[in-house]
Amino acid sequence: MFKKMLIANRGEIAVRIIRAARELGITTVAVYSEADREALHTNLADEAICIGPAKSTDSYLNMNSVLSAAIVSGAEAIHPGFGFLSENAKFATMCEEMNIKFIGPAGSIMEKMGDKINARAEMIKADVPVIPGSSGEVVTAEEALEIADSVGYPVMLKASAGGGGKGIRKVNKKEDLVPAFEAASQEALAAFGNGAMYIEKVIYPARHIEVQILGDSFGHIVHLGERDCSLQRNNQKVLEESPSVAIGPTLRQKMGEAAVRAAQAVAYESAGTIEFLLDEKSGQFFFMEMNTRVQVEHPVTEFVTGIDIIKEQIKIASGEALSYKQEEITIEGHAIECRINAENPDFNFAPSPGKITDLYLPGGGVGLRVDSAVYPGYTIPPYYDSMIAKVIVHGENRFDALMKMQRALYELEIEGVVTNTDFQLDLISDSHVIAGDYDTSFLMETFLPNYHKKD
Amino acid sequence: MFKKMLIANRGEIAVRIIRAARELGITTVAVYSEADREALHTNLADEAICIGPAKSTDSYLNMNSVLSAAIVSGAEAIHPGFGFLSENAKFATMCEEMNIKFIGPAGSIMEKMGDKINARAEMIKADVPVIPGSSGEVVTAEEALEIADSVGYPVMLKASAGGGGKGIRKVNKKEDLVPAFEAASQEALAAFGNGAMYIEKVIYPARHIEVQILGDSFGHIVHLGERDCSLQRNNQKVLEESPSVAIGPTLRQKMGEAAVRAAQAVAYESAGTIEFLLDEKSGQFFFMEMNTRVQVEHPVTEFVTGIDIIKEQIKIASGEALSYKQEEITIEGHAIECRINAENPDFNFAPSPGKITDLYLPGGGVGLRVDSAVYPGYTIPPYYDSMIAKVIVHGENRFDALMKMQRALYELEIEGVVTNTDFQLDLISDSHVIAGDYDTSFLMETFLPNYHKKD
Repeated sequence: MFKKMLIANRGEIAVRIIRAARELGITTVAVYSEADREALHTNLADEAICIGPAKSTDSYLNMNSVLSAAIVSGAEAIHPGFGFLSENAKFATMCEEMNIKFIGPAGSIMEKMGDKINARAEMIKADVPVIPGSSGEVVTAEEALEIADSVGYPVMLKASAGGGGKGIRKVNKKEDLVPAFEAASQEALAAFGNGAMYIEKVIYPARHIEVQILGDSFGHIVHLGERDCSLQRNNQKVLEESPSVAIGPTLRQKMGEAAVRAAQAVAYESAGTIEFLLDEKSGQFFFMEMNTRVQVEHPVTEFVTGIDIIKEQIKIASGEALSYKQEEITIEGHAIECRINAENPDFNFAPSPGKITDLYLPGGGVGLRVDSAVYPGYTIPPYYDSMIAKVIVHGENRFDALMKMQRALYELEIEGVVTNTDFQLDLISDSHVIAGDYDTSFLMETFLPNYHKKD
Repeated sequence: MFKKMLIANRGEIAVRIIRAARELGITTVAVYSEADREALHTNLADEAICIGPAKSTDSYLNMNSVLSAAIVSGAEAIHPGFGFLSENAKFATMCEEMNIKFIGPAGSIMEKMGDKINARAEMIKADVPVIPGSSGEVVTAEEALEIADSVGYPVMLKASAGGGGKGIRKVNKKEDLVPAFEAASQEALAAFGNGAMYIEKVIYPARHIEVQILGDSFGHIVHLGERDCSLQRNNQKVLEESPSVAIGPTLRQKMGEAAVRAAQAVAYESAGTIEFLLDEKSGQFFFMEMNTRVQVEHPVTEFVTGIDIIKEQIKIASGEALSYKQEEITIEGHAIECRINAENPDFNFAPSPGKITDLYLPGGGVGLRVDSAVYPGYTIPPYYDSMIAKVIVHGENRFDALMKMQRALYELEIEGVVTNTDFQLDLISDSHVIAGDYDTSFLMETFLPNYHKKD
């Protein structure tokens, strides 16, 4: 096992990783920006090194600064958390070259799965269902028309080198395709220096179902069941749960096996997530993408499986074999996570940084966990993500979990900044959510439009 | 299920019960003394009623005040927690007469098990091993001599109506017996108006092993495995764990079955605990007493079984059948609880009440729970028990649990009052404790005498 590990992140995930490392007897090194001198991760780690100014590009995204901190402190491994450098293939490769273990898959695997056209091709080879669409690059509008006709409208046009919403168009009918294709391809060329596109049918209505997988360096790969992350606002997950009410044992096994095949196809090592879209009516599911890192919502899976995903990542990276065989992994009860953000639901969820003057985090009892990096008197800096806590509950069943979440959010008190706590309370009190009857469009198209009308 | 419930307690157990009740959809009524106006339980409950001055006898022990509060608020049930009125048969009977459900066994059962001589006789009938000794009241010193000779010295002389350490004598050799008997009997007569004594052989060395049981109103009784509570200071438990390292599957089953027989003997209803002394070498175990209420250390059992004992108590009291059959109850992993007290280990553990100026309770990650009723700025009143928090961890195995506890205690910060946090950290770092090699005498006779010498 590593003696010393650097955590190349901030906020609750950095704290989560420091805690897991400490429980494994590993000395921890935090890195922090000038804005994070008083952050919990900075104070909690055994050592802390300032890596630059507040702006992420100058600190948490600065590969040389992070690597220097690892070298100076003598860290043998770097855990990247999520966001920042966690899916940066170049950084993973740089770590490898410096003989520092990057806790995640190899850079070559990230590259393979980061290129969307390539990922689709890999999945097709591995017999993992992909969204109907093009089988490779689509260069001309004529090809695009042909493919769209064959899969049926509406379709999404996406840039192969895409990211950040650039080079993407939704096309509802044939007449709109050619101009949309040309505009998107131009945009992609300008943004990424590459105008290559691909096409996917729009799956709607759909659930966002993702399967957690773990792979070790001996080629063992297991899945830990699914998470339903369909409750999203602007493609940002708001509430996640496991298991999904839309999935029975047979479908769970099918999706789990598909996820394992997906990971096997690239000889995946570490924790990863295969994201699928599920057409609830037909039970058909389609590969969307693979996230080659731990997810924000990993605790719901930890609650229902009893497996510490962060510790498994660290153990795998240190060369240990997986602690569990597939048949030893069972799903017990029901877990829900609510993301608590410093944001104002009454002003279009505008971030609300500032000083937390008073704080009471709910605690105690059975099946409650709060992952957070805030404390009373802490000032939330304006430079980073607005998520300040995750409230996660584990109940005997879904109703029990919902009741626990209600009790926890009722107890949660954060003074000094505006948060979405009441919004989350309203969300879990909505009859559709209570019934589990929602898809990816529910929050934006059904819940939010009616949200303030009831007052 | 009840609509409204009164919690006749304070501190962390009152908070724990309020939380469980809320998760069951029950409206909660707190009672509080004048010293507890700012207490967490007072603020957390849906309603709160002041029941008198700070002194327990004037408030939390005042049966009429508590009952009046229940009647005024319309509470259908009273949960007594532990301590205070929780084992008061008269109070349980008064509740019954007022048609308010006392969440615990009937007063008649408490009386039966509260009378030690009677409890011994019941256990013998139920084929539950008792400590070798007298089979009924011992009235004369001559009888006492005869029994002590037959079981062997040392022996304990105990008052049948005993409590609070009155009327108890340890006798090491024959010559001391007669004077000790006479003194103890006199003391018992003076204290309880009843000089009847009983005799038990001293089991030493021994482990304090207790078995959690649950019984419903349909006569179903199950056990939830054992807790090892051998780490005690002045007969006060300091750290508890489940399972016990001293117990294998065969002995666990034997003790569990004995505990179920003990509960069946009195048609026990609600949560209860059968306390045994275990002679580790021979594997023989002996009934000590039955606690007819929930225990401080119930969370370690909740962690390893996944069963919410407080919720089960409430459900049983409302007339529901047990949610679990014996064969469905499994022990997973290892759990440890450290009691955090506002006390000063450097001054013979003198209570250290006062204002908590700063507080950080450890949180997050897998398998950690803190049951507490304190918050930053809270003033611990001097009138009650000094326990202010319970840190409970659940690991895959005992070593993992110890590492988690270390991480949790390392994070715990309580400023303004002196606590035993560092003492607990030292205790879990002791080589005997790490090896699980301790009995009921370990803390007082081995650990404490050497404790300050190492500085």
